[in-house]
Amino acid sequence: MKHNFGAGPCVLPQEVFKQAAQAVLDFNDTGLSILEISHRAPEFVAVMDEAISLVKELLHVPAGYSVLFLQGGASMQFAMVPYNLLPEGKKASYLDTGVWSKKAIAEAKLFGEVAVVASSKDQNYTYIPKEFTVDNDSVYLHFTSNNTIFGTEFTNYPKTNVPLVCDMSSDIFSREINVADFDLIYAGAQKNIGPAGATVVIVKDELLGKTGRAIPSMMDYQKHIEAESMYNTPPVFSVFVSMLNLRWLKSKGGVAEIAKENVAKAKALYDEIDRNPLFKGTTAKEDRSNMSVCFVMENPELEKPFLKYAEEKGCIGIKGHRSVGGFRASLYNALPITSVHVLVDAMQEFAEKHA
Amino acid sequence: MKHNFGAGPCVLPQEVFKQAAQAVLDFNDTGLSILEISHRAPEFVAVMDEAISLVKELLHVPAGYSVLFLQGGASMQFAMVPYNLLPEGKKASYLDTGVWSKKAIAEAKLFGEVAVVASSKDQNYTYIPKEFTVDNDSVYLHFTSNNTIFGTEFTNYPKTNVPLVCDMSSDIFSREINVADFDLIYAGAQKNIGPAGATVVIVKDELLGKTGRAIPSMMDYQKHIEAESMYNTPPVFSVFVSMLNLRWLKSKGGVAEIAKENVAKAKALYDEIDRNPLFKGTTAKEDRSNMSVCFVMENPELEKPFLKYAEEKGCIGIKGHRSVGGFRASLYNALPITSVHVLVDAMQEFAEKHA
Repeated sequence: MKHNFGAGPCVLPQEVFKQAAQAVLDFNDTGLSILEISHRAPEFVAVMDEAISLVKELLHVPAGYSVLFLQGGASMQFAMVPYNLLPEGKKASYLDTGVWSKKAIAEAKLFGEVAVVASSKDQNYTYIPKEFTVDNDSVYLHFTSNNTIFGTEFTNYPKTNVPLVCDMSSDIFSREINVADFDLIYAGAQKNIGPAGATVVIVKDELLGKTGRAIPSMMDYQKHIEAESMYNTPPVFSVFVSMLNLRWLKSKGGVAEIAKENVAKAKALYDEIDRNPLFKGTTAKEDRSNMSVCFVMENPELEKPFLKYAEEKGCIGIKGHRSVGGFRASLYNALPITSVHVLVDAMQEFAEKHA
Repeated sequence: MKHNFGAGPCVLPQEVFKQAAQAVLDFNDTGLSILEISHRAPEFVAVMDEAISLVKELLHVPAGYSVLFLQGGASMQFAMVPYNLLPEGKKASYLDTGVWSKKAIAEAKLFGEVAVVASSKDQNYTYIPKEFTVDNDSVYLHFTSNNTIFGTEFTNYPKTNVPLVCDMSSDIFSREINVADFDLIYAGAQKNIGPAGATVVIVKDELLGKTGRAIPSMMDYQKHIEAESMYNTPPVFSVFVSMLNLRWLKSKGGVAEIAKENVAKAKALYDEIDRNPLFKGTTAKEDRSNMSVCFVMENPELEKPFLKYAEEKGCIGIKGHRSVGGFRASLYNALPITSVHVLVDAMQEFAEKHA
């Protein structure tokens, strides 16, 4: 049995895999594969509608916001956000909390002025900056809610007078949020939403259409809103599996319930990291991510042997990113707590052997 | 048994569906679903490499060209082509042969001057313009090789002194081409390549980097070439199934062999359209598409009954686009000739009943 701690694309529920495989052979008893049906067929329009409805229902999206399923991942959003929101000659503010923030900042600079109002680069992104000032003339403040590579997560979201834009790729649907606190949220699907190839955008309608800039149709949120995420052929299978996964989340009791499990999973692993003399966490404790748990060993020479030991126990995908080293265990929604227990047991057994 | 004449997403080989479904449950005996593996895992890097190699092999792509798997479909290419190739203040030439050409033209106008050097709009796009002049100061000539909605296809490609850019979404891999005659070819996957969610681009390297324009990373061909189509998380499953489908095409003898079948399939259907007094084709005979066969009935009142009759025989997806009416039978690579025979039989039986 494999315990998939991979950073994304990542584990999804086994029942979702089964339903997805069945639909590749025969979708809803149509006699056709989900891969060969028209995206304009009523059967797929119903899938898209349900996927969008589930996003709205599970996150309690208020009126005045649109939900989109697009392509291109968060990386495309790094450009689409300023393309749609940042007029030439105006300023947007960004928080720099890691690799993904930096990429978002680089793309925004192509469209207008960018103020990096706070950065944790001085300590290799091991904490979340809390003190910063956002000029009132910023058209928005952008931040990354969870930093997969460095293992930090915003416990409290920034409070500001300007519109708030969040890259929520790696912790959307993992915790309760108040969508009304945000003006635009985006997330690549391949963590808690579904397989790679789809991107969810939640945008406050009144934010759009204000730059005076001509926007290519595929980059224009308004075009996609008008076309109900069917401006062109959508990534049919990725949307379908996202819908299955969101159904699964709803059946589990929704975000409030999964959030409790996620807290319990992270606590179990952090407790062991703090207790076990061989291991130590890499981030400020108050900024620890519940999704991306980063840790190293007191003796770096033991890291390769532990990686091998954990893999023998079925724990895969725990090698840390090269910019941090050590280990990263991603604890996305679909990872069962039993998998965390297997990893914790491996840490304990390994410590006994190397006491 | 269903005979899927849908315009896209469309029929793929049954064995591809079986292999894809198996990989959703267990990919290559890894114990993991293809939907949960990392795109950086060696197993998926091998998939991407093989998909790119198969494109090169099946189309005999010469040295000096790069092959990319991207997201966003042909619609994203409508913008990416001028973003990367058309400097501000310069001119690109376009042939207007239908809905998709028109969309490509509209996007290009955001980036520079556009000269529409020929159009078949005067006769509702029922023919391919053959006489036109392309100014030598055009940075490229763009055309759509096959027009799905109107059922026309370029038999001979335009000859010109400027770089040639082709939207080959609906007939790539259906016929032999000489890639060296083109400078950039793009195609949404969801006809002859694979499922929706991936896009293939074949681009002559020396064409790039000449506009002086800052390009968002996700829109920049050079960034994707440097990253070997892994600039960000690719649409893993769509690329995987595309690879399976291209493997199938290779096993069938490649493009030369499938082209013979495609000609035979189209001939069988056009022969019946021309022979059967109830039906008539909608396009100039010399410009008939082998992929998208459009036809109407002499008596429009019989169209609804025939649609129903054909559906009872299992022929689905043959309703014509509203701008043409009547019927459109898409005969993509994976549609067996036996399906065409079923449709032809239905036409003959229907004619006998209504003689």
